[in-house]
Amino acid sequence: MGAKLFGAIVERLGQPAVLGELLLGVLLGNLALFGGPSLAALETSETFAILAELGAILLLFEVGLESTPKDMMAVGLPATLVAVVGVVTPMALGYGVDQLLHGQDSWMAHAFVGAMLAATSVGITARVLQGAGSTRTPSARIILGAAVIDDVLGLVVLAIIAGVIKAAAAGAELDAMGIVAIVVKAFAFLFGAIGIGSFLSPRLFRRALAIPSTGVVQALSLSLCFGLAWLAQKAGLAPIVGAFAAGLVLEDVHFEDHVKRGEKPLHESLRPLTALLVPVFFVRMGMLVHVDNFVKPGVIGFAVFLTLAAMAGKWVCGLVVPRGVPRLTVGLGMMPRGEVGLIFAGIGASLMLGGKPIVSSATYVAAVFMVVVTTMATPPLLLWSLKRDDTRAKA
Amino acid sequence: MGAKLFGAIVERLGQPAVLGELLLGVLLGNLALFGGPSLAALETSETFAILAELGAILLLFEVGLESTPKDMMAVGLPATLVAVVGVVTPMALGYGVDQLLHGQDSWMAHAFVGAMLAATSVGITARVLQGAGSTRTPSARIILGAAVIDDVLGLVVLAIIAGVIKAAAAGAELDAMGIVAIVVKAFAFLFGAIGIGSFLSPRLFRRALAIPSTGVVQALSLSLCFGLAWLAQKAGLAPIVGAFAAGLVLEDVHFEDHVKRGEKPLHESLRPLTALLVPVFFVRMGMLVHVDNFVKPGVIGFAVFLTLAAMAGKWVCGLVVPRGVPRLTVGLGMMPRGEVGLIFAGIGASLMLGGKPIVSSATYVAAVFMVVVTTMATPPLLLWSLKRDDTRAKA
Repeated sequence: MGAKLFGAIVERLGQPAVLGELLLGVLLGNLALFGGPSLAALETSETFAILAELGAILLLFEVGLESTPKDMMAVGLPATLVAVVGVVTPMALGYGVDQLLHGQDSWMAHAFVGAMLAATSVGITARVLQGAGSTRTPSARIILGAAVIDDVLGLVVLAIIAGVIKAAAAGAELDAMGIVAIVVKAFAFLFGAIGIGSFLSPRLFRRALAIPSTGVVQALSLSLCFGLAWLAQKAGLAPIVGAFAAGLVLEDVHFEDHVKRGEKPLHESLRPLTALLVPVFFVRMGMLVHVDNFVKPGVIGFAVFLTLAAMAGKWVCGLVVPRGVPRLTVGLGMMPRGEVGLIFAGIGASLMLGGKPIVSSATYVAAVFMVVVTTMATPPLLLWSLKRDDTRAKA
Repeated sequence: MGAKLFGAIVERLGQPAVLGELLLGVLLGNLALFGGPSLAALETSETFAILAELGAILLLFEVGLESTPKDMMAVGLPATLVAVVGVVTPMALGYGVDQLLHGQDSWMAHAFVGAMLAATSVGITARVLQGAGSTRTPSARIILGAAVIDDVLGLVVLAIIAGVIKAAAAGAELDAMGIVAIVVKAFAFLFGAIGIGSFLSPRLFRRALAIPSTGVVQALSLSLCFGLAWLAQKAGLAPIVGAFAAGLVLEDVHFEDHVKRGEKPLHESLRPLTALLVPVFFVRMGMLVHVDNFVKPGVIGFAVFLTLAAMAGKWVCGLVVPRGVPRLTVGLGMMPRGEVGLIFAGIGASLMLGGKPIVSSATYVAAVFMVVVTTMATPPLLLWSLKRDDTRAKA
């Protein structure tokens, strides 16, 4: 209820509801600083962590559902180029900022910080484009196409870096071959899951027509989601990688015969689950922000440079669009990090290397700062840029 | 998916789906006996236990939603009498069976075994009546009215006995006054929650109209459910008592203005949640059945006598119906225990007294046996009895 309330308040201020949920979490997690009761027991509660993780898995499943493998294949070269530049540049900039300011950490920590800057959360941009009636402009088409590739690239990057860190933490010798093996495994899992899943999913749903009870679509879809999440975990990748692959594979057409005989379509039965569990994830991510870290020397500076790297890294991808497409609009549209950035930061906070989390509690604060600023700054900047495009087109 | 499959198979055999889910659990929990892999890690997993408990809470919330405080007040004297006799008799018989066969246990263990026999699961009966087109007969009206009171009485009994056991386990001196205090607390909580909840609920929903986002009905309803479950736990009662009270209090009319402006009614947003979590509960309850207990001396005998006590205790309540109402039909209709019996048995298995669970692993097996037999026997016996009533009425 608190998440709903805070979400509604920030939505009235023109911001996405997720920022309200995050803010509520920050407030709850830091009550003790203002003389309130400490909720440290909730922060470390296993129940709370499990529910939040289920929320993150269902969220990435939902993100995956928004596109299909066909969409992915149909993305043209310009959007693919934008996506690749928009992943590589912020990663390089993030790596650089972390190496400059946290020189004592290992190169794997720098790489993880870079990875946190990789993935765009296009939902915020899509809503702004929709509100402005601009979803059919060339820049919007490039942004929305790039977002499909961007999600996949971001998860591959996460899978690779987390795999390298886990292998290092387990004491494996990490030569070039070892890293190549992890890269191959990450690609093999994602594209293997998508390939085999696309083949199996329509056949499974056709078989499942033999089960007369209701709720089969929900049961089978969630089994696919949690099944692939579990396989991803077994393969040493993050469970969200599997959940995303499951979402990508599933298409409405697989279960249209079920819907014809009275089943609810998947998005309708998924909504109540995400409505309950996803806010738990965002509130928990907010609670992990210990704001007293902000006054530690160097943290504000690091947060500001990280945010600049995140923004500039995405602006650069506007430079590779075809002639005539507004560069700034594309760069600004790719800017928000939102939920995917938070999920990456949360995973980093729980990945251990040499007895310390790869994302320290100070770096976590800076990452959340980066997510909040890139997300909040997008709607006003993008609207301004869209208006400018409009005026220019008329001129 | 396994629960769906097994549910569909037993439904084809004319049995309620919940028995299939339970059976799947029994199979999974005893795979090792047949040379399969042991799933002991799943059985003791905290994640699995948490999800199952959420399932039980949502299930009792749904049971509570089926009636309103007004329905409760409107139940006539005959149905109330049937409910009271149908709770007291099986409790007394269950107490007696446990005292005879487990004489070494404390009187509190006997009382808990009695309590496990108290509550009817009227859902199974309701489905049989519906199928036979007999929901408007006098016997059906008495059964469905009695079920409303029966649920409340069963939960009060559970609250009292669990309260006494917890107090004893904490080392409290249990004189008559102490027990009276617990009885008063149980009644005060349930009727206090219903009274205050009925006053607050329509006002809260009216206030919540100010929040423009979707999902307010779901968020507020689940907050009420989990809030009262938490309060019940704080008051030393089982969380399901609070969840049931929340369901009882909530009425569709409280949020009709929300539904008018496009929100989903509660039952639609609750269904996907229960579809995911309730089978987890039933499968887990099945996994806790260690069938090798059955070959221990005395367990089969205890299970059979417990089941007879459960059946006979409910048949007796057919004797107090007004003249002209078919006695046997009412007695048979009150017979199934289903989910509520399982929840009680599960709570007993986790309540500790003197270092041992109040429901031992052998007694748990017998309780599940009792639930399965009373549930499976109801549809055929009730159908036969309804046909007999029909023939007699025509004669």
